[in-house]
Amino acid sequence: MSLHSEIRLLGDQALAASRRMVSLSTRRKNDILEAMAQEIGARRAVIQAANAQDVAEARTAGLSAALVDRLTLTDAGIGAMIRGIREVAALPDPVGKRLAKRVRPNGIVIEKRRVPIGVVAIIFESRPNVTADAAVLCIKSSNAVILRGGKEALRSNQAIATALAEGGQKAGLPRHAVQFIATIDREAVRELVQMDDRIDVVIPRGGESLIRAVVEQARVPVLKHYKGVCHVYVDAAADLDMALAIVENAKCQRPGTCNAAETLLVHAGVAAAFLPRFAELCARRKVEVRADEAAREIVPSFAVASEEDWYAEYLELILAARVVKDLRAAIDHINKYGSRHSDAIVTRDERSAKKFLKEVDSAAVFVNASTRLHDGYEFGLGAEMGISTDKLHARGPMGLEELTTYKYLVRGTGQLRG
Amino acid sequence: MSLHSEIRLLGDQALAASRRMVSLSTRRKNDILEAMAQEIGARRAVIQAANAQDVAEARTAGLSAALVDRLTLTDAGIGAMIRGIREVAALPDPVGKRLAKRVRPNGIVIEKRRVPIGVVAIIFESRPNVTADAAVLCIKSSNAVILRGGKEALRSNQAIATALAEGGQKAGLPRHAVQFIATIDREAVRELVQMDDRIDVVIPRGGESLIRAVVEQARVPVLKHYKGVCHVYVDAAADLDMALAIVENAKCQRPGTCNAAETLLVHAGVAAAFLPRFAELCARRKVEVRADEAAREIVPSFAVASEEDWYAEYLELILAARVVKDLRAAIDHINKYGSRHSDAIVTRDERSAKKFLKEVDSAAVFVNASTRLHDGYEFGLGAEMGISTDKLHARGPMGLEELTTYKYLVRGTGQLRG
Repeated sequence: MSLHSEIRLLGDQALAASRRMVSLSTRRKNDILEAMAQEIGARRAVIQAANAQDVAEARTAGLSAALVDRLTLTDAGIGAMIRGIREVAALPDPVGKRLAKRVRPNGIVIEKRRVPIGVVAIIFESRPNVTADAAVLCIKSSNAVILRGGKEALRSNQAIATALAEGGQKAGLPRHAVQFIATIDREAVRELVQMDDRIDVVIPRGGESLIRAVVEQARVPVLKHYKGVCHVYVDAAADLDMALAIVENAKCQRPGTCNAAETLLVHAGVAAAFLPRFAELCARRKVEVRADEAAREIVPSFAVASEEDWYAEYLELILAARVVKDLRAAIDHINKYGSRHSDAIVTRDERSAKKFLKEVDSAAVFVNASTRLHDGYEFGLGAEMGISTDKLHARGPMGLEELTTYKYLVRGTGQLRG
Repeated sequence: MSLHSEIRLLGDQALAASRRMVSLSTRRKNDILEAMAQEIGARRAVIQAANAQDVAEARTAGLSAALVDRLTLTDAGIGAMIRGIREVAALPDPVGKRLAKRVRPNGIVIEKRRVPIGVVAIIFESRPNVTADAAVLCIKSSNAVILRGGKEALRSNQAIATALAEGGQKAGLPRHAVQFIATIDREAVRELVQMDDRIDVVIPRGGESLIRAVVEQARVPVLKHYKGVCHVYVDAAADLDMALAIVENAKCQRPGTCNAAETLLVHAGVAAAFLPRFAELCARRKVEVRADEAAREIVPSFAVASEEDWYAEYLELILAARVVKDLRAAIDHINKYGSRHSDAIVTRDERSAKKFLKEVDSAAVFVNASTRLHDGYEFGLGAEMGISTDKLHARGPMGLEELTTYKYLVRGTGQLRG
């Protein structure tokens, strides 16, 4: 079979499975998830053997230690995967929830209810645990899922996907509700994301270049974030101790994440008081600072920032820093250079806080709190598929609700259009 | 300036305007809409003169009478446009509405609030009144809008767009919040829909080929429906009088609309009783019926349906008809051949109704009511931009709420991620 036909077959099978998924009760879905968790446990040795092959090949191919580390499935990693499945089973089922009800003057009763999206395609990179995380969220929200992982983790992903599908089927999961693309041919992704008659949404997870390639090729709608260029703005009316703690947390607590801070903006009125203390913190935490001229006049040891630094997502211990003349300049900087992800103001001035909340055009805007809190668990929404910086459908954490759509159910007694 | 630079400039201006739109109060927006309505009234003669030129050119070019008719702006048409603007002003403002609020154990307070999408691009065909309808919905929902109409209505659209922009500005509408693309170069559409750093959503309105071209070229997310292949299914337990009335209304009341019925499905158990009465109705209403063999055995005068008829959106007085062996076959037919738009069952059997509502994968599903009721006004949602058959963001009527997104506003007292 040609690759084209092969991918279309996967699509047909997923669509057929998605039609059967709508009839599963919450209880049945939770039984399926439990069966999946048990199967992962039962096949632990098989999964780890597949993973050992992937890891060995990655080492031979000379992948960096960090990448090999992300690829490796330890006992603890498998334990976390199993726990993660059970956590999703414990979350409330979004499907069927009534969002609105209206009785119209002509007597028709209109309900708007949450229903599954249908067929979800997930395209991701090296970490094999994404296979389980993503599949399980899709199943709990009654979607069929097609998974496509990175080539480094091919064997690990396949072993996990097979365990999920076969484990789930023991408890009543429709066949083909979880499918995995086993070829590493890149053309498979193009075929997949163009198949808008069979796939309802594609969610790419990984680096910016992967995501740009998917958007470029896709005819299916895409939910995504390209990158997280997050800001902390220290206002004239900031509590400087709090500002220091928030900047430290936003930059250093886990610098490789999308909601870590990449740029510090400081109001000119507090720059002289704040920046030397900030410089001390950065020296202690080994953060390289790339600053504009105004900041370097106060702390000459800062490196020189270029225009590109304002756009940069470092994902490591580097922070761009700039002095701004007022709140307006801070908001304009964020809306121009930011990525609409997570941005924070530190201030005691309620008017500044309100203006910042209203005018910063990002998925989550924070007052006196760390950007690192932008997360499904921290927001009380449970496990998520990632953070969206899109404005349509899902913005911010993509959890179970964001994997649903709605439809209108209309009941009448013979009503016509007049 | 090159077309590329020209369209990018429009995008820059729209983005800048959208940043100012977020600060407009509901009252200010309603004043702006009233000023727009008055300006349309004040420029009635100018608009109609522009329209007369378009109409004359269309006649010279040999456009069909139906198209010339759609293009023509009568006094009544302008009156309806003005009334339409005032109706939108009277609708509730969706912006700022709180969708959820949570206080987390660490004390942060998370609000999820409706905010405008940002920059909306509308690409439409011949009817010039779309210019006002679309612009006004975007402004009421605090979005900036870029309009691109069909070349036949170029002068009319431009006159209307200018009236809206200049009228609105008298009452405080930000400059460039309403922009119109005056070139007829098709390349402009490509530039527009690829500009995903400046435009948040594109809504194409018109024929299937226009919409497919937009989706094919777009990098910006698209909200749309390709077509409306809507079904009425007459169940074994149907009230046949009601079924006849619903089929008549769904097919004949306005056959050129997307929610008009295109296919009738009849349960085998009632086919012999129903189809002769249906044939009489069709003869009276001059509806051509294209039927499968089973239906033709009962009414031999029906034309023969081919496989393509099941996919057809006739938009005229033609109806495909098929006998199905049961509810399952009806649902499968709809999910296979339909367009996920509007589908109805006529039945007195509650179990059949429930199964149909659950399993038919369409934006609106009806029990004992006409598919023609799928409409923003009929649903009590007010004016709309059209019906979406997409599953992401907006499904069904696209009204003011569907022109908004949300963001998370988080307030803390120094909370960090642990």
